Amino acid sequence: MPEKHVREYMAERLDKHILDSGMVVLGEPMDAVESVAFNFMLPAGAAVLPEGCCGAAGVISDWIFRGAGDMSNRQLGDALDGLGLHRSESVGSAHISLGAALEASNLTEALNLYADIILRPSLQADQFAPARQLAIDGVYSLDDDPRQKVMVKLREQFYPHPLGRSTVGNVAELESLTAENTRTIVKNNFNLSQTIFAVAGKYDFDDVCRQLEKLFAGRRQKPLPEIELRPKAGEYTHIDDQSAQVHIGLMTDSVTLTDEDYYNARVAVSVLSGGMSARLFTEVREKRGLCYAIAARYHSLKDAAGIMCYAGTTPDNAQQTLDVIVAEFNRLADGISDDELARAKVGLKSALILQSESSSSRAGAIGGDYYILGRVRSLDEIKDAVEATTVDSVVGFLRNNRFGDFTVVTIGPKKLSV
Amino acid sequence: MPEKHVREYMAERLDKHILDSGMVVLGEPMDAVESVAFNFMLPAGAAVLPEGCCGAAGVISDWIFRGAGDMSNRQLGDALDGLGLHRSESVGSAHISLGAALEASNLTEALNLYADIILRPSLQADQFAPARQLAIDGVYSLDDDPRQKVMVKLREQFYPHPLGRSTVGNVAELESLTAENTRTIVKNNFNLSQTIFAVAGKYDFDDVCRQLEKLFAGRRQKPLPEIELRPKAGEYTHIDDQSAQVHIGLMTDSVTLTDEDYYNARVAVSVLSGGMSARLFTEVREKRGLCYAIAARYHSLKDAAGIMCYAGTTPDNAQQTLDVIVAEFNRLADGISDDELARAKVGLKSALILQSESSSSRAGAIGGDYYILGRVRSLDEIKDAVEATTVDSVVGFLRNNRFGDFTVVTIGPKKLSV
Repeated sequence: MPEKHVREYMAERLDKHILDSGMVVLGEPMDAVESVAFNFMLPAGAAVLPEGCCGAAGVISDWIFRGAGDMSNRQLGDALDGLGLHRSESVGSAHISLGAALEASNLTEALNLYADIILRPSLQADQFAPARQLAIDGVYSLDDDPRQKVMVKLREQFYPHPLGRSTVGNVAELESLTAENTRTIVKNNFNLSQTIFAVAGKYDFDDVCRQLEKLFAGRRQKPLPEIELRPKAGEYTHIDDQSAQVHIGLMTDSVTLTDEDYYNARVAVSVLSGGMSARLFTEVREKRGLCYAIAARYHSLKDAAGIMCYAGTTPDNAQQTLDVIVAEFNRLADGISDDELARAKVGLKSALILQSESSSSRAGAIGGDYYILGRVRSLDEIKDAVEATTVDSVVGFLRNNRFGDFTVVTIGPKKLSV
Repeated sequence: MPEKHVREYMAERLDKHILDSGMVVLGEPMDAVESVAFNFMLPAGAAVLPEGCCGAAGVISDWIFRGAGDMSNRQLGDALDGLGLHRSESVGSAHISLGAALEASNLTEALNLYADIILRPSLQADQFAPARQLAIDGVYSLDDDPRQKVMVKLREQFYPHPLGRSTVGNVAELESLTAENTRTIVKNNFNLSQTIFAVAGKYDFDDVCRQLEKLFAGRRQKPLPEIELRPKAGEYTHIDDQSAQVHIGLMTDSVTLTDEDYYNARVAVSVLSGGMSARLFTEVREKRGLCYAIAARYHSLKDAAGIMCYAGTTPDNAQQTLDVIVAEFNRLADGISDDELARAKVGLKSALILQSESSSSRAGAIGGDYYILGRVRSLDEIKDAVEATTVDSVVGFLRNNRFGDFTVVTIGPKKLSV
């Protein structure tokens, strides 16, 4: 009975349309909300920018908001705030995402503004220096945030270059950026034919498509050149920091979303780190009291994926923490219990239900699915696939795909042995 | 027409019931969600614990989950994860909050577990040491997070002691805690007659009340002794740190939620820092490029409130950043424009709508309202009150309540002049 109820609830609808320009428009309507969230995914993420421009995506996602169309910096800011937008810009490996959540009745006006921001940003020279300076300050501020820094460095080391390139940037390359070459990047990379627009919440899909077709009219553009991958950087990186804390980042290969074993991998990560009963938490934190923070999660790009783990601990406990983490990763293939499987499934499904109620989460998720899979999974499909995993399927997967290399980054007073 | 629509939407219902034990039960039903969120507010926050026990609340909120009723640590963890709970424990000035979001069909079982955790935690001696150690590690980890550290210190300095006492704790007091005295705190402070329970999302209020009445049966208990307030600690505190960043925290008095000028204060803060068109952002970050991060927000306890500002900058820009922030606070009383008022209203109302769609946010908000006001404001009431503010009401309030003392905390390589 509850089962049936959930199934009905999850039988959601997907709206999809492709504009003449090739831009993909996706929508997931949500009943009983008054808000709407949208997200433009522009193919200008950290990995796809030219060599030597690490950090340019962050500068761009600031600079384009400093005036657009016939609006000055100030006028554009006033107009956006006048719509009560809750904005979130983010830079990923493949995309710059320009997202916002707002009252549904302001959607049309908001999309008009975003068309100006994406197609007609002013990109004035006098606004370039402050945008770049803030990006540089942001890199320096990572030094005061070793927990985040260790994970930025970990992605850099783990993924084949340039997939894991820092989304924050580095100071030398940021300093060599000019308004001129940054404008060229915007021109080349804001390729509408490779742009995905996703909307979730309360909207009228026909109206949205009609408006976007008008705003983003244009011919198909040639796709951006494929990026060439170089081997991953290295297995162990230590960053010396004479502090009382040690930050450990660890990552190892996993399958991507297109793989038939994807859900087995997700369940395995959940057994490792899906809650307080999960293995890392009980073995590392609770039984041994080795660290104050520990978590592992699945992390995926389009063409590569991994399981990523963070632990924060003290210098005295750091080596043992790392050793126990690696041992717990490897021990997974020895077997998992029925209870562990059941809890992992409940945890993954519960996360789905909570996500299904947030318009911002859904806009992000459907866009991400489309980019990686070329289609959007329904929540029902995901739920059924999670449900279909068994102890045998998960353990079989783990045995056929033993964890090999671990990429490790530490920040702390001394190197560990890896 | 859109106006009317919003009004209907916001005409929400409040469920309220008081158990025989005095525990208050509040509920806000939300249509079309399959999830439910609940929150127990236990009167054991940082400010109400005995002197010398700073940090005990954090230890308690970990220790009580290490076994309860007839369940061991491990069994309890398994049971909680088996329900797919997304837990969030937090320590505030007045309360320890035990919150969770979950699939609605698991609510009954979850409440059974929480009754054990609150009323019958095992509190075993062998689980005390790791719980305390993790709290101590957490204090040390603040050293690696100066952005958070400056705000913890700011609340300590700003609020009359012990209202602003660190919710994280301090190492010396944590080290002197024993299992024995911590058990006594749990016994004294888990006072059901002063406990607030809030639920939002999908639930049956009659069922919830019947279940809680059974689980939390008991007689009214004597209220905890009033805490005695001592004057605030000081105006300027500098913490020396030879880094490339300077973290500035600044706070000044404002009115509490019970004050008739509350909404005027909220609008004023929004003009100062409600978005990219707000004054701090444009004056400090955009026009002058002085810092990479800046934000002010309203912060309220039951008996005291303030406007709290954070800025992250470089040593060269730190003094000017601080000076401009103080100037912008003071300049508010010179007047605000109609446009600024309109944008502040849109921003505050838009935040309300987004909050109204999150069951966790609503469970937190209705509990907080009840604690401070003794009643829960409807979203309509809040919206109308925001709408009723005028340029005259806001500026009049600011002129009659000029900002006086600024409490300032800096972390960086050199002291500033305040």
